[in-house]
Amino acid sequence: MSFLDRVHECNEHDLTNFRPLYVAGHRVGWVQHRLVARLERFPEVFRTGPRAITLNPALESFEARSAAVKSVLEQLRDTGVIPAWRDEPYPVATSFGMPPLLQMERAAFPSLGMRAYGVHMNGFSRDGNEIKMWVARRAYDKPTFPGMLDNMVAGGLPIGISLRHNLIKECGEEAGIPPDIAARATFASAISYCKQVREGLKPDVQFVCDLELPSNFEPQTVDGEVAEFYLWPIDRVMDTVANTTEFKFNCNLVIIDFLVRHGFISPEQPDYLEIVAGLRQ
Amino acid sequence: MSFLDRVHECNEHDLTNFRPLYVAGHRVGWVQHRLVARLERFPEVFRTGPRAITLNPALESFEARSAAVKSVLEQLRDTGVIPAWRDEPYPVATSFGMPPLLQMERAAFPSLGMRAYGVHMNGFSRDGNEIKMWVARRAYDKPTFPGMLDNMVAGGLPIGISLRHNLIKECGEEAGIPPDIAARATFASAISYCKQVREGLKPDVQFVCDLELPSNFEPQTVDGEVAEFYLWPIDRVMDTVANTTEFKFNCNLVIIDFLVRHGFISPEQPDYLEIVAGLRQ
Repeated sequence: MSFLDRVHECNEHDLTNFRPLYVAGHRVGWVQHRLVARLERFPEVFRTGPRAITLNPALESFEARSAAVKSVLEQLRDTGVIPAWRDEPYPVATSFGMPPLLQMERAAFPSLGMRAYGVHMNGFSRDGNEIKMWVARRAYDKPTFPGMLDNMVAGGLPIGISLRHNLIKECGEEAGIPPDIAARATFASAISYCKQVREGLKPDVQFVCDLELPSNFEPQTVDGEVAEFYLWPIDRVMDTVANTTEFKFNCNLVIIDFLVRHGFISPEQPDYLEIVAGLRQ
Repeated sequence: MSFLDRVHECNEHDLTNFRPLYVAGHRVGWVQHRLVARLERFPEVFRTGPRAITLNPALESFEARSAAVKSVLEQLRDTGVIPAWRDEPYPVATSFGMPPLLQMERAAFPSLGMRAYGVHMNGFSRDGNEIKMWVARRAYDKPTFPGMLDNMVAGGLPIGISLRHNLIKECGEEAGIPPDIAARATFASAISYCKQVREGLKPDVQFVCDLELPSNFEPQTVDGEVAEFYLWPIDRVMDTVANTTEFKFNCNLVIIDFLVRHGFISPEQPDYLEIVAGLRQ
């Protein structure tokens, strides 16, 4: 059993493969060296140098930056450089909740190594004293991580929508959880990690909440993003997280956070403090 | 309201005031420059240099190291350098749960900047849907932080006793909580910090647990370490943590951790991610 392996997998990266990306004087991203040659073709938007990439400072407003970057990214999309386009703008800011410097298509966040935020929900029920957790299997036609296991409800945070509103929306769309039940979810933590992927870097933050569902509740796959839901005894969830990579990488951290908070991972476990510290990088 | 101020206060330090202390090749402590002159008088135990202090490598066993350091510390105690002597040995190890390199009087841990471990418990009750938290006021004759507010139960972890056993013991000694109730406590987190104090440095880790007590439970001050217990609405606890320094410094983090996990500190609060990250340094 190694929960710590899952933590480490979420943090595998080598920043020497990247150059920092600056917008308005703030480092907001990391660009792989091999993408720089693509960005060099758009000098009116990206100023590329051997040690850093800078968004043209003449782009002074949210609107100007967003439009210029969009135009570049759409061309990169059309030549296959940016896969899994969604048409969902996410904010780019110096930190969570700050006024965004620009908005940008979510599919491009890993390519530019920008921090995305999302909400992941641990849905669980009690069977007497036993806790069971709802696990989702991602649809086989999802553009990212098809067919992998996932948290009951999870979603990135688009621009202009609050965490709670987004959660309630995703609860309805992904699992058929009515708003009055979804509103009982407790935001309990946040996990962060930095994972190098083929497209670039994912230095993301996921807000974590727990929702206890009535024991007779049955989720519904409403929007087709989930293939199937399972209600697993917590031991099976723990075993799957510790001994397999069946869950999408960051969902492991969300579950480990739950297991720590609810006392299922014991402080007597040798790696306890490393695991706990590793949930927030 | 600033929970973040409490986090920062627990992490005020300047390592340029210290030299690292090595035992058997491992850095296990930090010694203030002004203490080095005292240690220089014991060259058979401490090898002092301009950049580091090393425990004499000829002291090869747990027993030899423990005895040699004890002899030095007792002399420092007798000349008033180490206050608040308790006669309670704590382990010194490379990390939690590893075989200890030596054992050492707890009162000397800040002076040598060694990491101590402890358990802090958030005791709470429900009054309908409302959560109330038990708060302790430390006895006015305690050697450290007399009269300050504290968590319901808290204690350092002596050598040779498990976390759970220690918690149950402290629950009985400090608050008259019977073992069968104390055993229901859930270990839910760990906080860490690094605070410079007059004696030296406290780079400590506290395991955090929650215990929901029956609403009619009344704690008893058994061993005289607590002057008084209060059952406070959670709003009063939050206000006291955010706006005062009435709690002993590290107890604030234990309560903030509780407030985050139970959703009382909202992710929409501007400093949320900084607060959450700041609980583990």
